[in-house]
Amino acid sequence: MDSKRLGRHILVEFYNCDNELLNDAGKIKEYMVEAANVAKATVVESIFHTFNPWGVSGVVVIQESHLTIHTWPEYGYAAVDLFTCGEDVDPWIAFDYLKEKFKAEKTETVEINRGNVKKIYNYSQGKYKNIVFKPQSIEA
Amino acid sequence: MDSKRLGRHILVEFYNCDNELLNDAGKIKEYMVEAANVAKATVVESIFHTFNPWGVSGVVVIQESHLTIHTWPEYGYAAVDLFTCGEDVDPWIAFDYLKEKFKAEKTETVEINRGNVKKIYNYSQGKYKNIVFKPQSIEA
Repeated sequence: MDSKRLGRHILVEFYNCDNELLNDAGKIKEYMVEAANVAKATVVESIFHTFNPWGVSGVVVIQESHLTIHTWPEYGYAAVDLFTCGEDVDPWIAFDYLKEKFKAEKTETVEINRGNVKKIYNYSQGKYKNIVFKPQSIEA
Repeated sequence: MDSKRLGRHILVEFYNCDNELLNDAGKIKEYMVEAANVAKATVVESIFHTFNPWGVSGVVVIQESHLTIHTWPEYGYAAVDLFTCGEDVDPWIAFDYLKEKFKAEKTETVEINRGNVKKIYNYSQGKYKNIVFKPQSIEA
């Protein structure tokens, strides 16, 4: 575990994707769930919706945070978020998988640390110490 | 509509929140859904989970994208994402509402544009023109 942050979050812009695919909620769900799996995340639940006249929104809740997608099939564009916690899950593996599946000709990404450990410590005046990510399981 | 991007995304770090609240999935769901409402978003579906030994993850899918939260009650910390499209919804209203409800003593935010219109146009070699956000409704 990198002790500097609890999680990392990749904001992905997929340009010039397969237009038809970006309006196919079934396929998108399949790929987003599989992206979580290949990244070694544990899927808790997923929901996907198709919008009128077009576009798909979907979320895969994972034990280690979430993957989301919003598509604009008419522009070949999709906004994807890959937010993971802990060292066992690598969001970049999910990124590589989705880039290929959506046939994105151009991609842009920003990786942002979430839950900076030093800030949590400093802002609490040292109240919170030994700040580490703890593996969790879903409550029964 | 600001013609420069399809959506905007605020990444929020809430520090030194009410610890007990951050482990109360029912309250968190209530506040996240209400945050969507006060920002004039249209809620499509929401899912919230409590983790063992602690922590809550939740998503509110809105017609205009999503709100998400992941909490670390043991550190008083929550990572919140407020992603909205179109001009009718203001994610900063949701931010103000949640900041108060979670009693966050310290907050940090980053706002990132999603779906830069000029890039969509340029990367497609001008294939996609007149790029605007279109209000959508959920498919029946």
